[in-house]
Amino acid sequence: MLVRRAREHADTVMMGRTHSVHAEPITFGVKLAGWAFELDRDRSRIRTAAAELATGKLSGPVGTYSHVDPEIEADVLTSLGLAVDPVSTQIVQRDRHAAFLAAVAVTGGSLERFATEIRNLQHTEIGEVQEPFRSGQKGSSAMPHKRNPILSERLAGMARLLRGYALAALEDQALWHERDISHSSVERVALPDATILLDYMLVKFTGLLEGLTVRAERMRENLERGLGLHASGRVLLALVEEAGLSREQAYAIVQRNALRAADERRPLAQLLAEDGEAAVLSPEALAACFDDGAFLRHVRTIVARLDRLVPPAPDGATAPEPTPHTDWGGDP
Amino acid sequence: MLVRRAREHADTVMMGRTHSVHAEPITFGVKLAGWAFELDRDRSRIRTAAAELATGKLSGPVGTYSHVDPEIEADVLTSLGLAVDPVSTQIVQRDRHAAFLAAVAVTGGSLERFATEIRNLQHTEIGEVQEPFRSGQKGSSAMPHKRNPILSERLAGMARLLRGYALAALEDQALWHERDISHSSVERVALPDATILLDYMLVKFTGLLEGLTVRAERMRENLERGLGLHASGRVLLALVEEAGLSREQAYAIVQRNALRAADERRPLAQLLAEDGEAAVLSPEALAACFDDGAFLRHVRTIVARLDRLVPPAPDGATAPEPTPHTDWGGDP
Amino acid sequence: MLVRRAREHADTVMMGRTHSVHAEPITFGVKLAGWAFELDRDRSRIRTAAAELATGKLSGPVGTYSHVDPEIEADVLTSLGLAVDPVSTQIVQRDRHAAFLAAVAVTGGSLERFATEIRNLQHTEIGEVQEPFRSGQKGSSAMPHKRNPILSERLAGMARLLRGYALAALEDQALWHERDISHSSVERVALPDATILLDYMLVKFTGLLEGLTVRAERMRENLERGLGLHASGRVLLALVEEAGLSREQAYAIVQRNALRAADERRPLAQLLAEDGEAAVLSPEALAACFDDGAFLRHVRTIVARLDRLVPPAPDGATAPEPTPHTDWGGDP
Amino acid sequence: MLVRRAREHADTVMMGRTHSVHAEPITFGVKLAGWAFELDRDRSRIRTAAAELATGKLSGPVGTYSHVDPEIEADVLTSLGLAVDPVSTQIVQRDRHAAFLAAVAVTGGSLERFATEIRNLQHTEIGEVQEPFRSGQKGSSAMPHKRNPILSERLAGMARLLRGYALAALEDQALWHERDISHSSVERVALPDATILLDYMLVKFTGLLEGLTVRAERMRENLERGLGLHASGRVLLALVEEAGLSREQAYAIVQRNALRAADERRPLAQLLAEDGEAAVLSPEALAACFDDGAFLRHVRTIVARLDRLVPPAPDGATAPEPTPHTDWGGDP
Repeated sequence: MLVRRAREHADTVMMGRTHSVHAEPITFGVKLAGWAFELDRDRSRIRTAAAELATGKLSGPVGTYSHVDPEIEADVLTSLGLAVDPVSTQIVQRDRHAAFLAAVAVTGGSLERFATEIRNLQHTEIGEVQEPFRSGQKGSSAMPHKRNPILSERLAGMARLLRGYALAALEDQALWHERDISHSSVERVALPDATILLDYMLVKFTGLLEGLTVRAERMRENLERGLGLHASGRVLLALVEEAGLSREQAYAIVQRNALRAADERRPLAQLLAEDGEAAVLSPEALAACFDDGAFLRHVRTIVARLDRLVPPAPDGATAPEPTPHTDWGGDP
Repeated sequence: MLVRRAREHADTVMMGRTHSVHAEPITFGVKLAGWAFELDRDRSRIRTAAAELATGKLSGPVGTYSHVDPEIEADVLTSLGLAVDPVSTQIVQRDRHAAFLAAVAVTGGSLERFATEIRNLQHTEIGEVQEPFRSGQKGSSAMPHKRNPILSERLAGMARLLRGYALAALEDQALWHERDISHSSVERVALPDATILLDYMLVKFTGLLEGLTVRAERMRENLERGLGLHASGRVLLALVEEAGLSREQAYAIVQRNALRAADERRPLAQLLAEDGEAAVLSPEALAACFDDGAFLRHVRTIVARLDRLVPPAPDGATAPEPTPHTDWGGDP
Repeated sequence: MLVRRAREHADTVMMGRTHSVHAEPITFGVKLAGWAFELDRDRSRIRTAAAELATGKLSGPVGTYSHVDPEIEADVLTSLGLAVDPVSTQIVQRDRHAAFLAAVAVTGGSLERFATEIRNLQHTEIGEVQEPFRSGQKGSSAMPHKRNPILSERLAGMARLLRGYALAALEDQALWHERDISHSSVERVALPDATILLDYMLVKFTGLLEGLTVRAERMRENLERGLGLHASGRVLLALVEEAGLSREQAYAIVQRNALRAADERRPLAQLLAEDGEAAVLSPEALAACFDDGAFLRHVRTIVARLDRLVPPAPDGATAPEPTPHTDWGGDP
Repeated sequence: MLVRRAREHADTVMMGRTHSVHAEPITFGVKLAGWAFELDRDRSRIRTAAAELATGKLSGPVGTYSHVDPEIEADVLTSLGLAVDPVSTQIVQRDRHAAFLAAVAVTGGSLERFATEIRNLQHTEIGEVQEPFRSGQKGSSAMPHKRNPILSERLAGMARLLRGYALAALEDQALWHERDISHSSVERVALPDATILLDYMLVKFTGLLEGLTVRAERMRENLERGLGLHASGRVLLALVEEAGLSREQAYAIVQRNALRAADERRPLAQLLAEDGEAAVLSPEALAACFDDGAFLRHVRTIVARLDRLVPPAPDGATAPEPTPHTDWGGDP
């Protein structure tokens, strides 16, 4: 679903931001493509950790096969689809469970990143995306006008719980001797609560992305409100490479006009055109610096890399993607 | 310093936001006043925890005064300004150190909240505050136009480290028998690193607040871009209380016009004036709903509560405030 | 109950241990007295934090009293027994909740310390205490002879969960603007789960202590198996102070004989009596070093400090102590 | 080194313990073999995570290749031995760093498990192992007789710090937009401190294991002090399978005699021989239950599984093992 929406918005231009501040243009599809690859890494980590968890033992109360032969263990576990723990105690060791809940927490952190982005982009002043809002749904009880990114906020909060469960699992490792049972009270809470929570988060995130309103016109508008400041890097380069200024000289010219543009809310291109020292660049060279197409010339290359995750359908339609429920490793 | 800046901006009107979305007007002074009270609570928690830490023992290798009489312990500790631990082992118990580093982590979380707010308000599209930027300072190396809230980001990051140290201290509590030394390797790292880090954060935050550029005109402008939607709650109330509609009817009218206002970017007041069903309210009653003064009539009462923290100077000047270094409890 | 059992065992001599190794004698009452004072500090921290939590607000959607006057807030909150938040946003700030769950986690760490001690003392080879074991109760299903400290292990595990919830609460602090709702999903899980868990732990720990079998004869026996090595510090002191050796000389003599005693399993007193260099101490002076009474002469002074927590009943009976349920701050 | 010592002690019989209480015999080699496999899993997790970290980007300030073509990125990164991030922002995403520090923390938890075991086995009453103690080294300053497991305690403490750093890294994931720099202050501390700490822990643990004194005679002695209670499970089985009693009947007989054995300190075999109800078992069948060889008949099979980690040298000598420094994944 992320892949589909990323392809859909491969060319939806918006401002890229670093440190909350306008940087250079990107497309919304590139942003979503990054999310898709991150979730794919998360899924792969969870699968690896879940496969490790699928290890059993039938080696008796201290792991020595005192009552049952190793062959019987091998037969039984094989028939259950479990690996044999090469050396066990009364139990299989808990480094595996810690690694598993850590992978769950990392996935939670990814969902928190995406949710935080939606919260940021839904700031009233930015307004580039909006969480699904069912027609007829009430917003804030006291403030009827509000459409709040409450799902994203909920996802961000839940990631904190997942980190707490991972922590408890990390502390479970140091059991005493051939086992103590201190891990059990933790696991009865942490394993179901963390996995059910992650499942809920994935389902909610999928619905959120599915129904997300993407406001291409606001993205374009915000870009233009940037006064062309995002092109400052290219102007800097042009002053150095084409006009032969030193980097220090170029930086001073660009910074001076950029700060003025922000303060006076006038387009950078216009201010540079009026700045004598910047006249070492021809009007054409200057205009080229402000061409967004140049910034985005490799965007389709990036989005095409999603084919590694989900091959495009032959007829141009997107192939069906796995749903969150079936694809996160139920059976090992 | 927070108190001084809060008083300075007692009447600097800005939009209050919940869920990243415009809610109702506040003033920047109210926001800062909340920060001042929170830091005051943090300071008080750290002082309480530090006072508890100022407990010593001189009761021998297992806490039984086997070689030294209790009177000698009392004399020595009193002369050092330390309390006597009523029952000790080889050491004083580590619940005190855990509580102390937890109080440090909570303070870090407060600074993270303030820093996150500055990061949010410095979004290009919002632009209501700006971190100090020394004239002559370079911004981004590649993008000369950018003024980034990097200090706030740094503070937000450091709060995570403080939580990590608190966690290690919480795990230090369960020492074995009359002591084991597993806490020592933790404390050699966590105690200096956490306290030095918090000191650094307080110093940086003070400088950040001191030099923070507050853009009252952008605050006003953003408020107006809100199209009066923040008054929707008051309109709702007026429709119910003054015009006698049911809450459901009123909610439907307000929500319908509010969503239209946002979609069409037209002021809510205007849309309501054109909506026949809203005509149950007189034009005067409608206008009163959009009077910001009414929203802010208690703001000075709130800011005046700061007098509990720092009494106002008699001549109107603000009394000097303690600096971060001297006031966070060096000596117990 | 801790206080009662501490008084009961004021004179139950046992070996004190540091680094898992025999150090000097203590009494079991001194150990329990230390636990009582630690739990008392925990209770006091939780009460302080709970009192801070008993703060309310009725100041509207952004904390400005835009719809309700401060007087009404004061009236309502007073009648609910809540303090007024001097500056609120849409909510009261979450530093209070973080501090509260941190105090809960510190208390969990204390219970973990006590539980770990019981687990250690119940090692088959040590055998000084034993968890309550109902007559008729089955032990291990495969190993009928075992009486396992499973309650203590459970308590130790649960402390890990409490740390995880505290962590999530610490991360909840940095809410955006006048509030976002990311803390809510966390608090719905962490607040009930952590407080119910701590209540359960306190109830279980109380029952555990109440029914704990204390084996004074095993304590005495383990002490004697120590071969008098615990007196090595006193011999060292006597060699320096009474016999006038240098500390280095004395240390060498004591260490040499102590290591031999451990290796050959012979009493230290006997080896020292045979060591020519140790003959600078008279037989009486040497014997005095091995008098346990001297180690324990201040033990009653320590246990008597419990009177600060629970005054002794006039007729010698112990006054009733608060039960865990009623005394950990239900109503603020 | 672990593998070598595990093979060396393949037949060093000791008591296996669950819940701190005697269970059934194991060998020290089996215990160490379990550690070797766990560290091998840790190493494999760290290598996987480190390989993921070896990903770079050269895609400009927002990840769009606005100034540099993808081909150049591919060339440069390949020459540096780094993978190309398929979609980057200003940086490579931090799920990789979180997963890496989580793997480091899990490894710390493993070392904590081993260190805790050494601390437990070094209890004066157990005394089965002893940390290396340099001849001439002073022990406790006040108590010259003590040989303390301080290295193991230090390792246990340090694992807590590693969990704290992992936690901070998990929180670093949710960066804003095309990057904010809040992760940087964390990573400057957490990445070097955590990796240096783990390296130190591995070096110390290696030295500790290398020089660990294993007291086979104490192990044997502790086993015998168990009064044969560890055979209770086999007696139970024999009563059911050979003598045809119901499980309930058999359990009652065994538990009754086992508890009496513990209380009276008499061998279980003797008590059973005197118990009329147990006479359904022939003396030979009873004696067979107490044959330790039967418990340990598969021990060599388990230890031989270490050949999967380190093949045995053809001439019977153990092949050289990798040292901790060279083998934990310097270069990917």
